[in-house]
Amino acid sequence: MNNLHRLLIDCPDDKGLICKITNVLFQNNLNIIKNDEYVDKNTNHFFMRTEFAGDLDAKELVKQLKKDLKTDLRIELNPNRKKDIVILCTKEHHCLGDLLIRYAYDELNANILAVVSNHNVLQPLVAKFGIPFHYISHQGKSRPEHEAAVLKALEIYNPEYLVLAKYMRILNPEFVGHYNNRIINIHHSFLPAFIGANPYKQAFERGVKIIGATAHFVNNELDEGPIIAQNVIDVNHRYSAKDMSRAGKDVEKNVLARALKLVFQDRVFIHGNKTIVF
Amino acid sequence: MNNLHRLLIDCPDDKGLICKITNVLFQNNLNIIKNDEYVDKNTNHFFMRTEFAGDLDAKELVKQLKKDLKTDLRIELNPNRKKDIVILCTKEHHCLGDLLIRYAYDELNANILAVVSNHNVLQPLVAKFGIPFHYISHQGKSRPEHEAAVLKALEIYNPEYLVLAKYMRILNPEFVGHYNNRIINIHHSFLPAFIGANPYKQAFERGVKIIGATAHFVNNELDEGPIIAQNVIDVNHRYSAKDMSRAGKDVEKNVLARALKLVFQDRVFIHGNKTIVF
Amino acid sequence: MNNLHRLLIDCPDDKGLICKITNVLFQNNLNIIKNDEYVDKNTNHFFMRTEFAGDLDAKELVKQLKKDLKTDLRIELNPNRKKDIVILCTKEHHCLGDLLIRYAYDELNANILAVVSNHNVLQPLVAKFGIPFHYISHQGKSRPEHEAAVLKALEIYNPEYLVLAKYMRILNPEFVGHYNNRIINIHHSFLPAFIGANPYKQAFERGVKIIGATAHFVNNELDEGPIIAQNVIDVNHRYSAKDMSRAGKDVEKNVLARALKLVFQDRVFIHGNKTIVF
Amino acid sequence: MNNLHRLLIDCPDDKGLICKITNVLFQNNLNIIKNDEYVDKNTNHFFMRTEFAGDLDAKELVKQLKKDLKTDLRIELNPNRKKDIVILCTKEHHCLGDLLIRYAYDELNANILAVVSNHNVLQPLVAKFGIPFHYISHQGKSRPEHEAAVLKALEIYNPEYLVLAKYMRILNPEFVGHYNNRIINIHHSFLPAFIGANPYKQAFERGVKIIGATAHFVNNELDEGPIIAQNVIDVNHRYSAKDMSRAGKDVEKNVLARALKLVFQDRVFIHGNKTIVF
Repeated sequence: MNNLHRLLIDCPDDKGLICKITNVLFQNNLNIIKNDEYVDKNTNHFFMRTEFAGDLDAKELVKQLKKDLKTDLRIELNPNRKKDIVILCTKEHHCLGDLLIRYAYDELNANILAVVSNHNVLQPLVAKFGIPFHYISHQGKSRPEHEAAVLKALEIYNPEYLVLAKYMRILNPEFVGHYNNRIINIHHSFLPAFIGANPYKQAFERGVKIIGATAHFVNNELDEGPIIAQNVIDVNHRYSAKDMSRAGKDVEKNVLARALKLVFQDRVFIHGNKTIVF
Repeated sequence: MNNLHRLLIDCPDDKGLICKITNVLFQNNLNIIKNDEYVDKNTNHFFMRTEFAGDLDAKELVKQLKKDLKTDLRIELNPNRKKDIVILCTKEHHCLGDLLIRYAYDELNANILAVVSNHNVLQPLVAKFGIPFHYISHQGKSRPEHEAAVLKALEIYNPEYLVLAKYMRILNPEFVGHYNNRIINIHHSFLPAFIGANPYKQAFERGVKIIGATAHFVNNELDEGPIIAQNVIDVNHRYSAKDMSRAGKDVEKNVLARALKLVFQDRVFIHGNKTIVF
Repeated sequence: MNNLHRLLIDCPDDKGLICKITNVLFQNNLNIIKNDEYVDKNTNHFFMRTEFAGDLDAKELVKQLKKDLKTDLRIELNPNRKKDIVILCTKEHHCLGDLLIRYAYDELNANILAVVSNHNVLQPLVAKFGIPFHYISHQGKSRPEHEAAVLKALEIYNPEYLVLAKYMRILNPEFVGHYNNRIINIHHSFLPAFIGANPYKQAFERGVKIIGATAHFVNNELDEGPIIAQNVIDVNHRYSAKDMSRAGKDVEKNVLARALKLVFQDRVFIHGNKTIVF
Repeated sequence: MNNLHRLLIDCPDDKGLICKITNVLFQNNLNIIKNDEYVDKNTNHFFMRTEFAGDLDAKELVKQLKKDLKTDLRIELNPNRKKDIVILCTKEHHCLGDLLIRYAYDELNANILAVVSNHNVLQPLVAKFGIPFHYISHQGKSRPEHEAAVLKALEIYNPEYLVLAKYMRILNPEFVGHYNNRIINIHHSFLPAFIGANPYKQAFERGVKIIGATAHFVNNELDEGPIIAQNVIDVNHRYSAKDMSRAGKDVEKNVLARALKLVFQDRVFIHGNKTIVF
């Protein structure tokens, strides 16, 4: 369907919201294909994601919706448009490799504009897929200096999202502020267990029987941003910390890919420190 | 909330359905709390489950809805009403015991009116919970004779649902016809694998690495009714058929309890040989 | 098999240990049915659990094993013997109810000698199964006073294991010292996430997408003892803290039952703050 | 450890086997690192996989073991040796891509000698990794003719294992006979559910709530060979057959990679139509 659209509404709850919104669509002869709503009772906030079909005058539709709703709203009129992203990574290839393969076969709903890394070991992998690779070493640079260099490299791409595919550096609030709610990280633990460095070592030492991975938006608290997706696998006493790390890589890459798919299909709303995922 | 209601709509799809329905609620000053819709694209059929709050004249509301919708619809005006059920079982206690404990602590959204069994071994367990137990042996009876006796016992209870908690007898279409789409069975395999008798033995012989259980509505084809819920667990070569059976019991009781919770909260629509679960 | 036995060895590793042990069994004409070993490389410690069959002079066998091994070892000569346990609980019935049903049908590998609670709400449930119930209120007692009263009640039963089936009180080290490595607790989170009180509320506030439960031995650090078993389920933004708590109960009861099964079959070795589970 | 070895024994059970085997190792001053045994009670068959360290004269060790055991046995004296494999595929890239990335980073325990396909669409992907690609179209060839051409291409590589990474053609017994117990397939369903063509379509039509994938050895019955590994994911009524197929791809690639890891570490014994997996 060429005339498929996606409406995303995120506003304070009010009586009759669904009625008003669907009425505007109906009056414009637009057909709802799929509809999800949720009201957060604690904050009295309304979320709606609607897929609909039909010919429309976008400006006019937004005008009508805003008139009735008296609220801010987002409308995505070309939902199949791919998001522009840049991937940041360090030395581990498993998440990056998985994303590159998906990208090569047009399964990512995104354009990978470039890959940026503080090491150059992944350059040959990225080169195979014909994507620009920026090696920006952190050696001899302060964190702000390094981040400024990364920001500068990103400037020419103007990405909508940054994907941290095992980027093993903490980001300063200033850096994060440039991509507010648009940085997605994969953390190699079942958060909030094992926040911080070496989560597999921590998991090994604690003797857990399950390990996991967490994809989340990055905010200014380390490993504290809104969680998008998590998954786990069983381990046992026979797993060394290194075995856990190896087994965990598959979970990491799957969780990151799943989270990206959700975000790039506009299925994820951020609400405070949580996500609404339709 | 005392004035909480539940609207269940199941009809051919049409443009503007959500708009029309939510408009009736809005005009009646009713507030939508939770809303789920789904359109089956293959059959062009619409499903909606809405929780809403407010004072209402039920007859009048239904009249208004029907006028606009020109379709059949179900409305449940007292969603916290418990369903009346009778449990059928044979000799295994695990599903029955789990349901009795939940019932004793008011977690089942149902009234267990009676338990009917073709054996008497579970009578002492049922007695602990003060529920009538009907022992109707199949010995010396033809299947139709036995089923007639069971139907007669059920008559005085007039249950809305029959729960087959490991009732190890095949039911004739005539029996099923009395409780069309109102009989829920737990099958001890991950259907459609291992249909029929001795699924754990079949699973053992096939050397599978995962076993499961399936809760489904019963129709006239053995193990072929609409699936409500399924779950699985890992097994390995160390499991005998008996070990699988033992491990599977926990899956069975959990899946059955989950399916019943969904059905008794009016979250399950039957559509042909499938379910829509909100 | 009446003459089935179980040998449990837990000692510093040494070259040829398996050879020496299996040689003693072979010389005594005993047939190994099932054998599990593990060497912890970090601590150089050896663990072995062997099921074997045959007629034996237990004292003589132990003497021979000790001569060759020059180490402490445990031998269980009647592995089908049921462990004597007492259950401690507070107000929640789901774990207790599950254990009582299993016990009633001889599936627990344990004798429930009594149930002790600081509340009396679960007395009627326990009474159904004909098990002594001790109501020992903590009202008006200091923690040491209350624990002394509980210890006194336990004295007459001399249990091998205490099972904390949602016993919602912290235990002093002195109490724990009486049952060292013999207290099993179910914690309603995926430890080490959400240590302490109200884990479901914590999980809700963090916005996690998976919740879990952890069965562990109790030591002197709150929620820090060796983990025996864990399991998880998916949740989403639609779950309130209360919904999580409700959904979590099924995980809790399943994980506790699984952990007890493992412990009561002598499959769990404690090693520092971890478990080896065969 | 350079002098690490792996002993694989697969023989009829006999009293004292473990004792005899470990005694030979002990007498040769070899240290057992890891040991797994299993006796299949139905067939009275013994399986053992032992990792051990030390200097050895391989011929002499095998001679001693055979003398004592009077049985056939396999000994792998260089367990870190990579297996030589050829991958067969058709048009789908997800399993192949995953294996290529793993191979590029030396995580596969195997050398991919070549990729053979009956289509040429995956040639560019394989080319990125510098691996020979053989396009052997089945167009205009009978099945035996096509298989003969494939066999001929395989000849020069002499692979130990063939990996069917979504090779969508049925193999004749004659072809399979050339690689008896050495062909590993990934089937896109939770076998034995949905044997044969279009399993996701079958799953969609049956309305299952869980779908899965199965890695298995290939024998002469379609989808009937010994199962190595399986995994599943939840689906619901919102999944079209195509959505299931898409979601299933991640399960397929993970299960295949896990199965290959197990096989290439010599952890999988084939026993009749089942596997023993250590």
